[in-house]
Amino acid sequence: MIIVLKQNAPADQVAAFCTELRGMGFEINDSTGHDTHILGLIGDTKALAESWVLANPVVDTCRRVSEPYKKANRKFHPDDTVVDVGGHKIGGGYFAVMSGPCSVEGKDQIIGIAQRVKAAGASILRGGAFKPRTSPYSFQGLRAEGLELLQEARAVTGQPIVTELMNNEHIPLFLDAKVDMIQIGARNMQNFELLKAVGKLKIPVLLKRGLSSTLEELVMSAEYIMAEGNPNVVLCERGIRTFETSMRNTLDISAVPMLKKMTHLPVVIDPSHAAGIAFMVPALAQAAVAVGADGLMIETHNDPAKAKSDGAQSLTPDQFDALMGVIRPELEFFGKTLN
Amino acid sequence: MIIVLKQNAPADQVAAFCTELRGMGFEINDSTGHDTHILGLIGDTKALAESWVLANPVVDTCRRVSEPYKKANRKFHPDDTVVDVGGHKIGGGYFAVMSGPCSVEGKDQIIGIAQRVKAAGASILRGGAFKPRTSPYSFQGLRAEGLELLQEARAVTGQPIVTELMNNEHIPLFLDAKVDMIQIGARNMQNFELLKAVGKLKIPVLLKRGLSSTLEELVMSAEYIMAEGNPNVVLCERGIRTFETSMRNTLDISAVPMLKKMTHLPVVIDPSHAAGIAFMVPALAQAAVAVGADGLMIETHNDPAKAKSDGAQSLTPDQFDALMGVIRPELEFFGKTLN
Amino acid sequence: MIIVLKQNAPADQVAAFCTELRGMGFEINDSTGHDTHILGLIGDTKALAESWVLANPVVDTCRRVSEPYKKANRKFHPDDTVVDVGGHKIGGGYFAVMSGPCSVEGKDQIIGIAQRVKAAGASILRGGAFKPRTSPYSFQGLRAEGLELLQEARAVTGQPIVTELMNNEHIPLFLDAKVDMIQIGARNMQNFELLKAVGKLKIPVLLKRGLSSTLEELVMSAEYIMAEGNPNVVLCERGIRTFETSMRNTLDISAVPMLKKMTHLPVVIDPSHAAGIAFMVPALAQAAVAVGADGLMIETHNDPAKAKSDGAQSLTPDQFDALMGVIRPELEFFGKTLN
Amino acid sequence: MIIVLKQNAPADQVAAFCTELRGMGFEINDSTGHDTHILGLIGDTKALAESWVLANPVVDTCRRVSEPYKKANRKFHPDDTVVDVGGHKIGGGYFAVMSGPCSVEGKDQIIGIAQRVKAAGASILRGGAFKPRTSPYSFQGLRAEGLELLQEARAVTGQPIVTELMNNEHIPLFLDAKVDMIQIGARNMQNFELLKAVGKLKIPVLLKRGLSSTLEELVMSAEYIMAEGNPNVVLCERGIRTFETSMRNTLDISAVPMLKKMTHLPVVIDPSHAAGIAFMVPALAQAAVAVGADGLMIETHNDPAKAKSDGAQSLTPDQFDALMGVIRPELEFFGKTLN
Repeated sequence: MIIVLKQNAPADQVAAFCTELRGMGFEINDSTGHDTHILGLIGDTKALAESWVLANPVVDTCRRVSEPYKKANRKFHPDDTVVDVGGHKIGGGYFAVMSGPCSVEGKDQIIGIAQRVKAAGASILRGGAFKPRTSPYSFQGLRAEGLELLQEARAVTGQPIVTELMNNEHIPLFLDAKVDMIQIGARNMQNFELLKAVGKLKIPVLLKRGLSSTLEELVMSAEYIMAEGNPNVVLCERGIRTFETSMRNTLDISAVPMLKKMTHLPVVIDPSHAAGIAFMVPALAQAAVAVGADGLMIETHNDPAKAKSDGAQSLTPDQFDALMGVIRPELEFFGKTLN
Repeated sequence: MIIVLKQNAPADQVAAFCTELRGMGFEINDSTGHDTHILGLIGDTKALAESWVLANPVVDTCRRVSEPYKKANRKFHPDDTVVDVGGHKIGGGYFAVMSGPCSVEGKDQIIGIAQRVKAAGASILRGGAFKPRTSPYSFQGLRAEGLELLQEARAVTGQPIVTELMNNEHIPLFLDAKVDMIQIGARNMQNFELLKAVGKLKIPVLLKRGLSSTLEELVMSAEYIMAEGNPNVVLCERGIRTFETSMRNTLDISAVPMLKKMTHLPVVIDPSHAAGIAFMVPALAQAAVAVGADGLMIETHNDPAKAKSDGAQSLTPDQFDALMGVIRPELEFFGKTLN
Repeated sequence: MIIVLKQNAPADQVAAFCTELRGMGFEINDSTGHDTHILGLIGDTKALAESWVLANPVVDTCRRVSEPYKKANRKFHPDDTVVDVGGHKIGGGYFAVMSGPCSVEGKDQIIGIAQRVKAAGASILRGGAFKPRTSPYSFQGLRAEGLELLQEARAVTGQPIVTELMNNEHIPLFLDAKVDMIQIGARNMQNFELLKAVGKLKIPVLLKRGLSSTLEELVMSAEYIMAEGNPNVVLCERGIRTFETSMRNTLDISAVPMLKKMTHLPVVIDPSHAAGIAFMVPALAQAAVAVGADGLMIETHNDPAKAKSDGAQSLTPDQFDALMGVIRPELEFFGKTLN
Repeated sequence: MIIVLKQNAPADQVAAFCTELRGMGFEINDSTGHDTHILGLIGDTKALAESWVLANPVVDTCRRVSEPYKKANRKFHPDDTVVDVGGHKIGGGYFAVMSGPCSVEGKDQIIGIAQRVKAAGASILRGGAFKPRTSPYSFQGLRAEGLELLQEARAVTGQPIVTELMNNEHIPLFLDAKVDMIQIGARNMQNFELLKAVGKLKIPVLLKRGLSSTLEELVMSAEYIMAEGNPNVVLCERGIRTFETSMRNTLDISAVPMLKKMTHLPVVIDPSHAAGIAFMVPALAQAAVAVGADGLMIETHNDPAKAKSDGAQSLTPDQFDALMGVIRPELEFFGKTLN
């Protein structure tokens, strides 16, 4: 970490600050210029909060030189992590398509969609049992019953299931249901107690980026999970909130190459939530493949106009078939293995 | 709700859609122009999701005419709500100052600060026991011990305490500690399971706006709490995330008059988190009074340079004294009662 | 346009407002519900400002049903516009690559780069003569001399040239130089006097999206140019400003499918400015092809470390060769014609 | 400037880079740690572009220690600048209110409003002659005729006039009209050719912050004007673009204390454009006084419902009277001199 001191910082206070830093185990490289005085800290600064440094009255600004994340950092783990979800790999050249309805709404619905998306090439079934909704008056999901229906669909098609966990208290239900991949939703990306809890499990985690979270914050949330012992984290870019109003969110496609530089974890894209409207989903999905993503999460519904949530952005099974018809050869073109 | 149909929508599909809407209990005002076809829904649309409407293939766009919130809506409750926190009123002309350290760090620290801020005019003591931190390697709070220390401080000074609840599983601890006001932090503003849980209590809730939450979303989160039966909600603007990088967050001062128009709930401002740096806190606090806020939440620390979190934005007790020295007469000037 | 009236609007004021609207040539569809009163305006509302409507005391909100742009609107011109720049087509299945340095710095530099990017497949040479720089102390471009050097490069390679116009007073210079395509930079997207001036020419215009301009505002700026008589407008998405700080800008890849729905104009992508750093440019360029863009604008410099502007985001000629080596087959895969 | 080198940067390339930097006149403080290598540049770096530094392959990141602006920098000019506009002072404890209609619409209108706002305490008359409008079909202002009408109003009331300049070519008209203060609008904040042109005049400039411009960019645009020789710059915060949709813009009230720290120039607030709706203007104006602004710019119109632009956010003369009735004592309370 580089610490720029104030021009008029009293020498005795600077000395006391340096003593304090050395006491914390850092070596200090002191660099005094004509009108600048800079301290370079040598040592492991990942537990050193910038707010603590900035609070010292002798400090003007500070800046990290090394990243505040370690387990997720590609510098220390150059090889791509490959996460296995019920036999389907994500990362390291393996590409997985997760698809299904926003919400699990009934037995016929979820099994019917599961069969259709599997036939088209999706290897993992998504479906929400517990639903985070802006309004308390909106459909809140079938909850425990939804988990049961997902298990039934898995029994029929053999696809592993990914579904969202909203609260620590529901973890026993998720373990009972043998959920194959736990989704942490965008609104819970910084629900740190929840992150710690899934970090204590071994089940793969799909960690969605918060609506206005920076990429560093996303990786720090992955670090929370990994620091507890669970290395099976897949990051998901699903659109960020910007000033643009013609779409639900703005897909930050650059997140893929930037995250790939920062971390060894797989990165998938959810074009459905990014777009918020179905007509754009295929174009964004194709862009996701081209930019180097490791997977896609796409909402498909048997009858979007009757969907209990997110109908506007859901593809019909026929539209999903058509999309996979272009995604398959594109993956081949880019040398990725659909599995 | 106004629904604009697509220009080329087939008449039979439109008829079927209208039948469906009528079956849900809505009357329809059909308005057909030269090149526009609009349906006006008459009835209670707060449980009708826009995404459901937009998913119908005959629909081009839709727009709510009435707000999706009811219990929090000023239209139905014109008078200001006054929330009582341990005998101190917030709202309806009553102004409360909450102050204390970001984190509870020890017995002497919290009691010492409590005495200082009380002497200066703060009626409610703030202090974090459970701390949401971006990094898993940062100080996570004293947790249960922190709650105990807050109780000890309350026993000494008589101030009610406000502290952040991060997880449903900690609620019994908060009840045991008789926490006077539960803070829901910005990162949990849309942790809907947590909102429902505090809605089942009667304890006042300080609901902080999410970093990139719209005002409508903030009010909808209050609606979650109120819909469960707890009317004692105080809203808190604490800065939003924008492109500007010279400060931690951008204080959305306009939120106060806009929220006052939307809802009858009290609105307080947290200039400490908005600024992220102490020198700006007094100016923002004075602006908060002038714009019509019902209270302030300000971080004060006995020794900011040694604080375990948020030191850079904390005032010293002397700085807090000085601030209250200007806030007191300003409140009098604007006709507010400090209590 | 739909106008929602206030619930308690006095009948005589509403009547007067309706009379005024009818006097402006609109028919009114009056729709009175239980607790809503809505006016639907029938007629050409594109010259009717929402702020004018909202200023009437009887009005609660209003919303356009038809777009405020006409000449750029795909509804009235379903076929793709194809813009011809010195014999190279953009749009309607034709794809053009524009490349060259951020700034023209000297004769050898611009001719050398022009030869390299032409050999690699770029059909149009870009290069800044007049440079908009945040700091008055930064290199401001070679200005008139830069235009001369671009002409010399064109004479050598035969490539048409695109370069930025910053001010109405420079138009005669641009006409003398027979600039093939005039770039309006992001910071001038709403310099309306400049838009009107290039609208009076017939030269193709590359209109870059402002850093925080909505897509509708971008199309409205194109409408300014087209309303003056120049239909040869190419839109360029070059990254928007968001809260994310790890990259210079956030590439809004969704702008391509959305703009294609809104307008018949060609849409190109500038991944160099979006990324701000060279390593991400190839991945974003490939995504741009996959999402359906009509062209690319890419900064290439013979020696980025010596570049007088934007070196960090410039490709070397070798990197540009490598990129075109993957873009060419990708265009073929997606059925686009590079020309 | 601090330059962090890449961990694996070849020694010979680093040496060459250092030689190049020394050749530019910088001293280098070389700081080599365990896993970091940092160069501290000593010398005047304001003309050194970060993009140039970042483009060197040995560089990982860099960061300015000293600000890139000099003439506007408070460090070098600790005293507040006081700008005199036709005898009315702004800054250094003097507060000025500018008011008038968004657009000059006719002789009676502008004279009538001028008389009303003067009587209420506004010292400077605002009114748009040249209007930047998003749509080419909206009212574009009376242009030259508008300037004449402003002169007539000035002749009647004696108030100096401030009006927006959109284009270099209109400068002779502004000089003929003896405009007392030239407004550079938000959309032209980075129209650098226009900034240079008004920098060559001595007339005070009201420089409005761009919709998504950082405070540093705003100060850099002031630096453009000052670098050409015109020190009479007043900065204006008028709301920024964020994700929030319930208001036109988000007033960045924190800009006032932050700009006061960065620069010695006066800072005024325009609550009308920030709010976009009249009911919020008084609360925001009062907050502006409390936060320490040096002036206000407020839109007042004789009949907002008939205004040709921005009616929704304009106060009536009666509302403006009422606002000044609270602003006057508030200024007294805060020790400011209205003039």
